[in-house]
Amino acid sequence: MLKVILIVGDGMADRPVSSLGGKTPLEVASKDNICRLASISSLGLWDPIAPGVRPGSDTSHLALFGYDPYRFYPGRGPLEALGVGADLRPGDVALRGNFATVNDELVVVDRRAGRALPENQELVKYLNENIGYIDGVEVKFYSATEHRVAVVLRGTSVSADVSDTDPHEVGSKVLRSKALVNDENAVKTAEIINKITLRTYELLRNHPLNIERVKKGLPPANIVLLRGAGKMIYIPKLQEREDLIVSKCLAISATALIKGVCRLVGFDVITPEGATGGVNSNFLSKAEEAVKAYKAGYDFIYVHIKGTDAAAHDGDVNAKVRVINELDRVVGYIMDRVDLSEVVIVLTADHTTPVEVRDHTGDPVPVLLYSPTMFADGVKDFNERIARKGSLGRLRCSELLYTAFDQAGRVRKFGS
Amino acid sequence: MLKVILIVGDGMADRPVSSLGGKTPLEVASKDNICRLASISSLGLWDPIAPGVRPGSDTSHLALFGYDPYRFYPGRGPLEALGVGADLRPGDVALRGNFATVNDELVVVDRRAGRALPENQELVKYLNENIGYIDGVEVKFYSATEHRVAVVLRGTSVSADVSDTDPHEVGSKVLRSKALVNDENAVKTAEIINKITLRTYELLRNHPLNIERVKKGLPPANIVLLRGAGKMIYIPKLQEREDLIVSKCLAISATALIKGVCRLVGFDVITPEGATGGVNSNFLSKAEEAVKAYKAGYDFIYVHIKGTDAAAHDGDVNAKVRVINELDRVVGYIMDRVDLSEVVIVLTADHTTPVEVRDHTGDPVPVLLYSPTMFADGVKDFNERIARKGSLGRLRCSELLYTAFDQAGRVRKFGS
Repeated sequence: MLKVILIVGDGMADRPVSSLGGKTPLEVASKDNICRLASISSLGLWDPIAPGVRPGSDTSHLALFGYDPYRFYPGRGPLEALGVGADLRPGDVALRGNFATVNDELVVVDRRAGRALPENQELVKYLNENIGYIDGVEVKFYSATEHRVAVVLRGTSVSADVSDTDPHEVGSKVLRSKALVNDENAVKTAEIINKITLRTYELLRNHPLNIERVKKGLPPANIVLLRGAGKMIYIPKLQEREDLIVSKCLAISATALIKGVCRLVGFDVITPEGATGGVNSNFLSKAEEAVKAYKAGYDFIYVHIKGTDAAAHDGDVNAKVRVINELDRVVGYIMDRVDLSEVVIVLTADHTTPVEVRDHTGDPVPVLLYSPTMFADGVKDFNERIARKGSLGRLRCSELLYTAFDQAGRVRKFGS
Repeated sequence: MLKVILIVGDGMADRPVSSLGGKTPLEVASKDNICRLASISSLGLWDPIAPGVRPGSDTSHLALFGYDPYRFYPGRGPLEALGVGADLRPGDVALRGNFATVNDELVVVDRRAGRALPENQELVKYLNENIGYIDGVEVKFYSATEHRVAVVLRGTSVSADVSDTDPHEVGSKVLRSKALVNDENAVKTAEIINKITLRTYELLRNHPLNIERVKKGLPPANIVLLRGAGKMIYIPKLQEREDLIVSKCLAISATALIKGVCRLVGFDVITPEGATGGVNSNFLSKAEEAVKAYKAGYDFIYVHIKGTDAAAHDGDVNAKVRVINELDRVVGYIMDRVDLSEVVIVLTADHTTPVEVRDHTGDPVPVLLYSPTMFADGVKDFNERIARKGSLGRLRCSELLYTAFDQAGRVRKFGS
């Protein structure tokens, strides 16, 4: 069996860009290493979910790892919670939360309590010490980046069919969570969420750290607004799947949401020093970790580069090109340090984020698949346009992972 | 967001035709405008349902509009009923019917009672006035073209799992409807259908209009034969779908069945003056209506040209070519009057109707997709052969609509 190395430029795929004369960032970037790999690889297109369906990074990553997101997507709440290290079991309900600033009438003054919130961890600890259970349901807060938190509800009859307390805009009053379906558990859970929300306000409004913040002229983090309830479902880990053969999986990423998906499906996850998920991340450190993992006996190594997507969401075409230049160094570093007769390498994007759209679109993404035992296309380039003529054709959803794993001898026979 | 204009030549796709030296009608037709549009578009193939599956015009249109027909096809009965303006609710059972001529032993003499039946509406009115309810189930007849009617059953326990009373051949006795499954509601519904059939005979045999017809030497319309029972299901309209963003939809068609599908999924429907659904229709009037709709703020405009299919069913290759020549004028009229930076245009067929087969086949159909923000193939032609090399690859079922809507910015993200 071969090892599989999967390298993804998040949102790397693009559409023709006017300021690049109709070319794409991937077409204009310096990518000698990628072209060198392309020359011994097969190219094609991959629809992360299906043609025209706009993927999130979470749903596309599930598909990338061989999980049909229509079956296995638990929703944003659980994924965020997993991303910040929550212990989630099937049946738990998780929500995303913001420390926010409200006035005495519970009208939102700042949805992010100033965004930078060094007190986040200490406030979360305080909430956990003083809440614990509401109406028999265990309530646990988890600290995330800046003003963000995740909240996990655990009980025999919690429901995710409940609305947000976050009004999603300044100047509106905190909302009452309501049951979205005619179901006793949903009614009960909505009530618990309303109690949690009020309890955070009672606990936080006069908290010493907030009094300090007000003294400094900063907005107090005096409530937690909740949104995006989702119920955790049972998802077999890669190692538990009956159709695949894999044991040690490592994901290298600096992005909480992606790390959450990776943990969910059985990856060990590391964030190398200096890796930030931004356009100025320490990209090469990820390549170094990938090669270390290869030498340490990992079967499946996932390298996630977020900067391409970050640049595209900002509409910054030059930054996107620069990140692809860096990605090329990552590819070169890895391919020069592994035995090419022992690996399958996939290079692709998790979705298209056109710099002119600044959001994900449903276009197919180019894919490069290197395997020592595959028909190579013999094309010394890799981009959206040339991939349309590639011999892999157009793969959908889990088909990309199966194709790579099959080349690596890691797919079990279906039938006899 | 861009507007989407979808133009379909019904059954336009073909196979190599001997009398055209192995070319297809689309290959030999004059189509300067289509070629002009093709040069700035992407080409590919579309399987309306799946490769090799022979679509009906109804199932292929559901797929064309982004509905999986395996999930959302309610059957021919409900679609015909909707096509003639029936008020159908989820749970209703609808059947197609023919006014027919039977002798005293209920043996079918003419399945269509002479086909031309100007008395249709008056006879339907008479049946509705004299039937109303049978065994607590509401029974309503709707007049359709020539000898055709639709019948709708509404009640708490009506079933569509019942066989036809129409023997589908002259010389056979009218059939008794039977339950197709071991189910009380199916047994009860079959009995109601048998009662309806006999009741139509009792009411019609001595009806004054039939006495008149016999005097004129015409076959009397003395019974209604029923077939194709189907249960209406809940189908979200395009505007109600959570995955798409669209509000005003207009369909331009002269074909009852297609109009039924269009109304079902939320289109406003118009039939321009002179448009007949035949090979000598007023084609340009449809283009004019499309441009009017574009200017009137419609988001999604569907132009249906039936003549290609009608010609192919007749095995008339010359007529099929002539209709494609007309379709080319429709395309030209539209593309010259819309702002090409504001629209996505799709040109395709709803299925293949080879003139040498004279019926629908399961071949993929060629598709042309114009979008201002897409990679164009730069090919100045459009036909079955060249589309096989197109960069869209091979799309299936709902994927064509999603791809067009995604280019128009009208698909909601799945995930985060």
